[in-house]
Formats: sequence, C-alpha cells, structure tokens
Amino acid sequence: MADETAGEKASIVVFSGDMDKVMGAFIIANGAAAFDMDVTMFFSFWGLKAIQKGNFTGKSFFGRMLGLMNRGGAEHIGPSKFNFGGIGRWMFKTMMKKQNVIPLPDLIMKAQEQGVTFIACEMSMNVMEIGKEDLIDGVQIGGVGSYIAEASDSNFSLFI
Amino acid sequence: MADETAGEKASIVVFSGDMDKVMGAFIIANGAAAFDMDVTMFFSFWGLKAIQKGNFTGKSFFGRMLGLMNRGGAEHIGPSKFNFGGIGRWMFKTMMKKQNVIPLPDLIMKAQEQGVTFIACEMSMNVMEIGKEDLIDGVQIGGVGSYIAEASDSNFSLFI
Amino acid sequence: MADETAGEKASIVVFSGDMDKVMGAFIIANGAAAFDMDVTMFFSFWGLKAIQKGNFTGKSFFGRMLGLMNRGGAEHIGPSKFNFGGIGRWMFKTMMKKQNVIPLPDLIMKAQEQGVTFIACEMSMNVMEIGKEDLIDGVQIGGVGSYIAEASDSNFSLFI
Repeated sequence: MADETAGEKASIVVFSGDMDKVMGAFIIANGAAAFDMDVTMFFSFWGLKAIQKGNFTGKSFFGRMLGLMNRGGAEHIGPSKFNFGGIGRWMFKTMMKKQNVIPLPDLIMKAQEQGVTFIACEMSMNVMEIGKEDLIDGVQIGGVGSYIAEASDSNFSLFI
Repeated sequence: MADETAGEKASIVVFSGDMDKVMGAFIIANGAAAFDMDVTMFFSFWGLKAIQKGNFTGKSFFGRMLGLMNRGGAEHIGPSKFNFGGIGRWMFKTMMKKQNVIPLPDLIMKAQEQGVTFIACEMSMNVMEIGKEDLIDGVQIGGVGSYIAEASDSNFSLFI
Repeated sequence: MADETAGEKASIVVFSGDMDKVMGAFIIANGAAAFDMDVTMFFSFWGLKAIQKGNFTGKSFFGRMLGLMNRGGAEHIGPSKFNFGGIGRWMFKTMMKKQNVIPLPDLIMKAQEQGVTFIACEMSMNVMEIGKEDLIDGVQIGGVGSYIAEASDSNFSLFI
C-alpha cells in the first residue's frame, strides 16, 4: 500500500479537544504518515488544547477563566463522555495502557517524528488567548487559507 | 492559490448546531469561496438551527417542546462547551469581538454573498417540524442525494 | 447520477455513538450505496455501539462499568442532545416514526443488504472490551491501515 499512497496528501482539522477524538485524529495521522502520505493537521479552537504545553493561559478575565476551566496539554484533556471530573480520563488511560495503546503524548511525538505538519489556527489562538509560547515546539501558525490549500489537494480531509 | 482552485468544489455537512462548530463551518466555507471554489453547505438535524430565523417552531407537542429547548437562529445558538445557560455564548461573543472575528450572522451573509449554496435537509426539517418559512431566505431544500452528488465530486467534503 | 458515480468510493469513520449522528452516517452510507458507490464504514470507539448486539459487555471492572454506563446496540443508543435518560431517544423515535423515517436498525440492515462494508476497529474493541461475539453478524475486524487504504482512494471520506 505504501507505494500506492506515497506522496499523496491527507489533511485533518482537529477542532475537538476531547481526549478520545484527539487520539483518533493522531492515530489516523500516524497511520497515513506510515503509508508515506504527506499529512497536515490544523488545530483550531478546542483542538489547540492537544498541542498546548499545559500551563494555564489567558490574559483577560475571560481568557484566564477559560484557561482554568479548559486546561490544555496532552496530559490534561479528558474524553468526550464519562469524564466525571477526571475519573474517566484515568479509567480510559488505564484501559488503554492494559492494551498497549500508545498514549497521547507519544502519539503526538511520533507524528512529529514522522514529519506530520502541525498548523495552529491563528484566529482561534487570538480568541482563546493562547500564545505561541503556550504551544509545544514545532508548530506553525496559519489561517484558514493554509487549510483550504491543503484540503483542496488532499486525498482525504477530515474534520474531527 | 485562487487560480489553482478555481472551479474546484467543496461540500460541508453542517450537522452540529453548536455556535463554535457552525462558525468553523462558515469560516471554512468562506475561505474556500474566497479561493474561487464552488461551495455547498448541507444543513441537517441540529445544523438547521444555524439557518433558522430564530422564531419558535414546531406544531405537535414534541415539536414545540424541541423548538423551545433548542431555539434556532444565528443569534441564539451556544457553544459546544461551557454554555452555562447562555453565559458561555456571551463570553465567546465578547472574546471574539475583541479580536475582530466576524460574528456568525455576518459570516452567514458573507457566504451567501460569495455564492455559497445552502441546502436544508428535507427529512430533518420534517422530523424537527421546521418549515421553509422558519428558514432564512435563499435556502434550497434537498435530500441526501443532492449531498452525495456534490460530495462525490468535491475536492474535500467535511461532516461538521 | 448513479451512472456517474458507479464504482466510486466513499468511506465513513463512525466514531460517535450518538443516535442522531449514527443515523446521519447510515443515511449518507445508504445514499452513496444507492448511487452505486462502493461504501466502507469504520466503526471506532463509541461508534462500535451502533453495531453491537446490545448485550452487556466487558470483563474487567472498568470494562463492565463502561458496558453498563454505555450499553450498545441500535435500540439503546440515545441522541447527542436532550436524551434525559432515554426520554429524548423515545421522543426522537416518535417524531421520526411520524415522518416515516427509517429507524436505525432498519438503516443498518439496509446498508448490509446494499453491500456496504462494515469494519470494526480492533484497537477500540480491545480497549472497550468488546468482543467479536458482541457485534452483529457480517462485520470485519480491521486496523487503521484498512481505513487509510480506503480513504486515500475515496471520492469523499467523513469522520462522524
């Protein structure tokens, strides 16, 4: 398969900040990269949480409140269902570990090692008061135009 | 870029009625239209809320109850997280305004001005008891077939 | 249209286990199959619920707890909004029935009759402790690679 897909493109908008969906996005991204596809991930809105370092963010009152309620970082984000204030995150992590599923921080690292391009949505960063210094290394900043350019040229493009 | 993408197609199913996701859909639609792409948006289920005028809808008991709990209209819909009975909507609107993000009603108008085609899913309208008179002007009514026809011919197609 | 799309491919990741989104996925899948497209659905994470038989699942303490809180089966899953412990499911079912919308179990059967391929994500099955015996008949088991192979070759690919 890798021969047939070499040089083909995939693009993924990571809009969700839920652990399960973000993991799904990275599993697909890593899978496509393993097929020698050229993969770009666009992190917008809640999806920025996946590529934050995990420090508290925000400058204005609303920005700080949002940073507090909605702390980013691959270690902190919870699943879309049954989180129950963090118990669900712990439960899923335990269940995944038992099955040797690669944890989210490692999936992110693996994607970077495989050359997946990470683009953070500038408008979302501004609205949510997340600065470049709040993001992990190796992330580019871009607008919707950079997504359209990739998506229109992709074999498949997903909104997650 | 606009030269390369001129005449290419994008299609978006707007299934979600959450303010943040609907805004994401319209930002992508407007971005693609700005690249001279031919863009079609299909509003189904909760996504119908985005193109409702905002009046209360429904005829049967369930229909009215749904119309009440789930009032449509670009001004009324709240974000997928942290809405807290409308506080979140107001907070995000304030944060977005501060960053000069185009508000949702203007994004919708801009999409129509740029020639984005709006199709409302007929089956969803029937189930949710939303009539053509409850929708903003310029919306076509269609079925799943009209989506498949566009999607199979699109450079990218998203489900939001 | 069916002539133009005959032999073309569509692929859908069903990640959500919410009744409304799962129905959306099957309506699109059936629509594409009716256009003679070659359709593959990948059921991962919560999406597995749609193709479970509906028995309680899980072996470990966490697995059983998850099976209890999150019972699968086309008859048991509720909508993404307004479920209220099952009332919403009943309300939507009633509203759909009134409009002669095909109920979910029949949509699933129709998809199988039209030759839609069902693939269950092996990693999700392991994590959630769902066995092959917990799934309806006619489902293949696969990994992310089988999705990438289909998606890279699809006219459209959706993440639902």
